[in-house]
Amino acid sequence: VRPRLLRALGSRVKRSRAKHPRTKVIAPLSPVALIAKKRDGQKHDEAELHALVSGLMNGAVTDYQMTAWLMAAYLNGIDEREMVALTDAMLLSGDVLELRSVDRPKVDKHSTGGVGDKISLCLGPLVAACGAAVPMIAGRGLGHTGGTLDKLEAIPGYEVKLSAKRFEQVVREAGVSIIGQTEHLAPADRRIYALRDVTGTVECIPLIVASILSKKLAEGIDALVLDVKVGRGAFMKDLQAATELSRALVRVGKRAGKRVSALLTDMSAPIGLTVGNALELREAIDVLLGGGPPDTRELTLLLGEEMLVAVGLAKTRSQARRALIRAIDDGSGLETLARMVRLQDGDDRYVTQPSRLPKAPVVLAVPSPRTGFVSAIDARSLGELAVAIGAGRKRAEDPVDPRVGIELCVKPGGRVTTGQPLALLHLASRRHADACRQACASAFTFSRVEPGQKPLVLRRSR
Amino acid sequence: VRPRLLRALGSRVKRSRAKHPRTKVIAPLSPVALIAKKRDGQKHDEAELHALVSGLMNGAVTDYQMTAWLMAAYLNGIDEREMVALTDAMLLSGDVLELRSVDRPKVDKHSTGGVGDKISLCLGPLVAACGAAVPMIAGRGLGHTGGTLDKLEAIPGYEVKLSAKRFEQVVREAGVSIIGQTEHLAPADRRIYALRDVTGTVECIPLIVASILSKKLAEGIDALVLDVKVGRGAFMKDLQAATELSRALVRVGKRAGKRVSALLTDMSAPIGLTVGNALELREAIDVLLGGGPPDTRELTLLLGEEMLVAVGLAKTRSQARRALIRAIDDGSGLETLARMVRLQDGDDRYVTQPSRLPKAPVVLAVPSPRTGFVSAIDARSLGELAVAIGAGRKRAEDPVDPRVGIELCVKPGGRVTTGQPLALLHLASRRHADACRQACASAFTFSRVEPGQKPLVLRRSR
Repeated sequence: VRPRLLRALGSRVKRSRAKHPRTKVIAPLSPVALIAKKRDGQKHDEAELHALVSGLMNGAVTDYQMTAWLMAAYLNGIDEREMVALTDAMLLSGDVLELRSVDRPKVDKHSTGGVGDKISLCLGPLVAACGAAVPMIAGRGLGHTGGTLDKLEAIPGYEVKLSAKRFEQVVREAGVSIIGQTEHLAPADRRIYALRDVTGTVECIPLIVASILSKKLAEGIDALVLDVKVGRGAFMKDLQAATELSRALVRVGKRAGKRVSALLTDMSAPIGLTVGNALELREAIDVLLGGGPPDTRELTLLLGEEMLVAVGLAKTRSQARRALIRAIDDGSGLETLARMVRLQDGDDRYVTQPSRLPKAPVVLAVPSPRTGFVSAIDARSLGELAVAIGAGRKRAEDPVDPRVGIELCVKPGGRVTTGQPLALLHLASRRHADACRQACASAFTFSRVEPGQKPLVLRRSR
Repeated sequence: VRPRLLRALGSRVKRSRAKHPRTKVIAPLSPVALIAKKRDGQKHDEAELHALVSGLMNGAVTDYQMTAWLMAAYLNGIDEREMVALTDAMLLSGDVLELRSVDRPKVDKHSTGGVGDKISLCLGPLVAACGAAVPMIAGRGLGHTGGTLDKLEAIPGYEVKLSAKRFEQVVREAGVSIIGQTEHLAPADRRIYALRDVTGTVECIPLIVASILSKKLAEGIDALVLDVKVGRGAFMKDLQAATELSRALVRVGKRAGKRVSALLTDMSAPIGLTVGNALELREAIDVLLGGGPPDTRELTLLLGEEMLVAVGLAKTRSQARRALIRAIDDGSGLETLARMVRLQDGDDRYVTQPSRLPKAPVVLAVPSPRTGFVSAIDARSLGELAVAIGAGRKRAEDPVDPRVGIELCVKPGGRVTTGQPLALLHLASRRHADACRQACASAFTFSRVEPGQKPLVLRRSR
């Protein structure tokens, strides 16, 4: 069975023509009039936003007109109806996968990005092992946050660039496939994001919503679970903005006909104990083996519950949890990861024997400067240190070193004595070792009294 | 004596470095940071605005970044200090004329554009005949408003493109020269204006101020008189916005070290009795001959008074008026126009024998549909009719026909009887004659009682 692609701008525009007076689609406003409308705080109708996005793609709207519109939208706002229409227009700028040969319910998870966030690596296979299909299009690390693709590429041979046909095939055969963004899916999002990135219009919730959802809806999923990170190590620094973002994502996703829910999770400290590509993959494999740090395991289970409930594979969260734990305990989660890796040309011995994963030649302990409790570990500082030692990238074209990273020996709430290691630095060489040690130690805050534990999930949006 | 050009970005930037901490000039904010600052409603310092404008010219700031900044500036505002700095930065993007060989005081007039506005054609020569130097860089007609250059080009041979050297020579020898914008003067204004035109950011007072003043200050003038038009036929439709614009122009012009004043004048009806290039030139010559419509003559004298007082060639407005009337009565104003035309390769017999000016082959009367008083003549409608019959242009690259236009037979306040001509249409052919007649007649509003006269000058700003 070959995968079918819906060439979106054929069938869907016809639908939209039926809903709107013909003149609106045939003769929408000029680019200047579209910009002026948003400049004056007015609302766009669906046809106007489709004209804007398709105009950007076909040259009728120039980059310098789009950025003027983006700034007007940033400052004057985009309401929910507009968000839905903008998401739809961006989605329809490219192909929308249908995955017709996959008969399981299709569900994905999207995280807004954090430090040490390796959840997709264990979550995708586990949820697939419980009977869902997980067609996951993931990203690379940029800035202080890591990327799922970089982590998977710690496995020799693993191919993140698959055709739509092979992607569908891996989803069908393994239940899960994790690949990179292709140029055929939501190309308008790539164009618009590149413009936002250089014009100060990134931090705009409606534009973030349209960007995330247009890409995710192109995967052909039935349901989506969002992990909206909040805190120093996240894109969203405060709870209010993160709440607003997660609610908008859920509402707009639902209006697009998907079952969508969001967990708002803490990103003040890194997730789990590792930051760095091979180290994080190893931690994810540990979870699939029944181990792993408690918070990594728990976050995986929480998101997995949401996913299984969303597609009806479990009636309750506790039923879902039992299924997920079973998939850990019987090894089917790990076997699913190995199968996916094999189908994507990776060497699956790196999954079944994770001690084979590439190791940094230098491992240095970072001694604690004092005795007491660790009250906080600054995720952002450690994310930046990881970039500095080669685990991440400053610019999209930078290479990453899979071997290097940071391994925490203690988490917030833990007790240390002076000289005891706070973390191990996995480095490519001893150059700048002292500076790295110092940078790592300064990410830790201490207190004399035992600090209260932060909850993992701060809020839920359905 | 050859004219001297100040290569602005040499000497002036040094001055600005002396005023600002070195680091600000050496390492200004990145383009994204500049945009974000204005996006967040903050104020730019002088170095930042210079970096923005020079960045646009040297490629460090892209067009799509500039338009995002322009929209942020449109929506969040630009204060007076910023307007001064932006004007200065745009001025310094090119050459600034010094006109050192011209020993007279230098003064110019700028009109924000209207219908039937031929004032520069008689005002420039008259003020020059009174002892001032008038280095006037004028524009072409676009949209419903006419352009001084198009009107002068009704004279065969008249050259509007002069080198800086020849421009200075004509100003020196005739006292006045009227030429077109050159690519060396305020090139950043042309770049920015072209971007504003296609991104809905034209109608923004601070950006208008910087655009007008950067071009005018590049002329090397000591003083500037602004004729800010207000009303249906003008760019500024309401008195409040026009007042705001004229006050901003005066304040920013003064902070740039110039003597600047502004008259806010009515542009609900056309100025004088003619709209069209040869027709308007003829009307201006009539004023220099001691005739012409009362409002054209009066507006010329009012602006001339401001100019002569501004450069100290008259102590009072009444003294200035006497000098201007003398220059009309003794023919020195007309002789100055003829000399300028001659020095710019034009045939000055068209000035001294204006009946030589090109005439339209078809002249049609537009009969009044009723008896009563004319209460209003819509300048904008007549301006658009003038464009439609070939006297103006819709796009910058359209040609104009010097012969065609509209000649009013009556002005607001005048009395007509049914069938009596309201206007004469000067047309290239009889095609669409009825539609033209109808369009012309519908620009007139009638009343039974005599309407009150609108004052010519609505407000003054100094």
